[in-house]
Amino acid sequence: MNRGTRFHPSERTKLRRLPQRASYERDTIYQILDEGFICHVGFVSDGQPVVIPTAYGRAEDILYIHGSVASRMLRGLADGIRVCVTVTLVDGLVLAHSAFHHSMNYRSVVVFGVTTAVRNVRKKLRALHAFSEHIMPGRWADVRKPNDAELKQTLVLELPLTEASAKIRTGPPIDEPSDYDLPVWAGEVPLSFVGGEPVADPRLLPGIEVPGYIRSPRAQSAAAGIG
Amino acid sequence: MNRGTRFHPSERTKLRRLPQRASYERDTIYQILDEGFICHVGFVSDGQPVVIPTAYGRAEDILYIHGSVASRMLRGLADGIRVCVTVTLVDGLVLAHSAFHHSMNYRSVVVFGVTTAVRNVRKKLRALHAFSEHIMPGRWADVRKPNDAELKQTLVLELPLTEASAKIRTGPPIDEPSDYDLPVWAGEVPLSFVGGEPVADPRLLPGIEVPGYIRSPRAQSAAAGIG
Repeated sequence: MNRGTRFHPSERTKLRRLPQRASYERDTIYQILDEGFICHVGFVSDGQPVVIPTAYGRAEDILYIHGSVASRMLRGLADGIRVCVTVTLVDGLVLAHSAFHHSMNYRSVVVFGVTTAVRNVRKKLRALHAFSEHIMPGRWADVRKPNDAELKQTLVLELPLTEASAKIRTGPPIDEPSDYDLPVWAGEVPLSFVGGEPVADPRLLPGIEVPGYIRSPRAQSAAAGIG
Repeated sequence: MNRGTRFHPSERTKLRRLPQRASYERDTIYQILDEGFICHVGFVSDGQPVVIPTAYGRAEDILYIHGSVASRMLRGLADGIRVCVTVTLVDGLVLAHSAFHHSMNYRSVVVFGVTTAVRNVRKKLRALHAFSEHIMPGRWADVRKPNDAELKQTLVLELPLTEASAKIRTGPPIDEPSDYDLPVWAGEVPLSFVGGEPVADPRLLPGIEVPGYIRSPRAQSAAAGIG
């Protein structure tokens, strides 16, 4: 297999400022991608940048996004245009002694590439499975699978993970040496994205319990934020 | 004043598919902007779309982003180029009876415009104040304010809020009529972005208590997610 454990930094993914915050490790990048629920897809339409939030999934070295064939955005992306897909997890507010050194702790991934439509039905189903398991592991086995008409209405796009980088900040604020003597509280306020009590569909058949996978750690305390 | 309570839908912000999910109300849009912590800024660099997450603030009808003058991205944006700024709050996973009708509840805002650098020092300070109060109301009064050197190192960009729209999904899944008879749990799993126990800077002077504004509702239960 031709893939390394590390992405090669490209002109576009190489972090010039604060390079100590960059990571090109495949494991690190995939962990961030697997933890987020949504990505922000950027593309150019008539010279205008457009950034749209959407759910996504990953299987091996491919990122999938999907939606309705009626979506203008997706139809455009199906033609194979350049995108930038960004996933951001916000882990905390970093409160310094000085206004200037306030910051955030976060983990973000930026992927560059060209999206193409998945036409093969078997591959499409595999992508939708990956997609579903990404959002909620265990759900796919429970629900009615897509029928032919639904598959035709669903546009699945794939983006090969070949040019990607992560940017990560952790830890306490970094203040000017003289500011540490100021009588101001400084530190970090951790932020996390948590699942609440499931709300049953008002039309749910009586007697159906909330499945265990919905109460899983993934949904209940997805440790740290969202893209 | 020339501003209405509603944005005029433009060719770019008009929602064609599922128009019932669109809102152009200024109040709705500003509420979403004020609730998020980070935005995703999209711009075009040598024909390539680039999407970068960053913190932001709002004061009246202007969105502010800021950062180091050493940042290539910000320097590019200071020249007055077209951007698309998107803020997304994820409110819940929507679990339908069928795989096809799974969805998310969310509130997102898309703003189109041209960023310009704020050069006037007084305006810059006002923007940084708005920025700080957006992330954590009450913090600004407590911390050391930026000095001249820090202000020079800080690039503040403004984006007038003139072309914006929101997209909102709420409520239970919408299934095919025949699927409601399936013995599958369906409903919503609410997701929220919450603040954890503050972690003091290891170099903090002894005896400094965590200020009340850090334990405020804004940080503790910022009701619903992040962009």
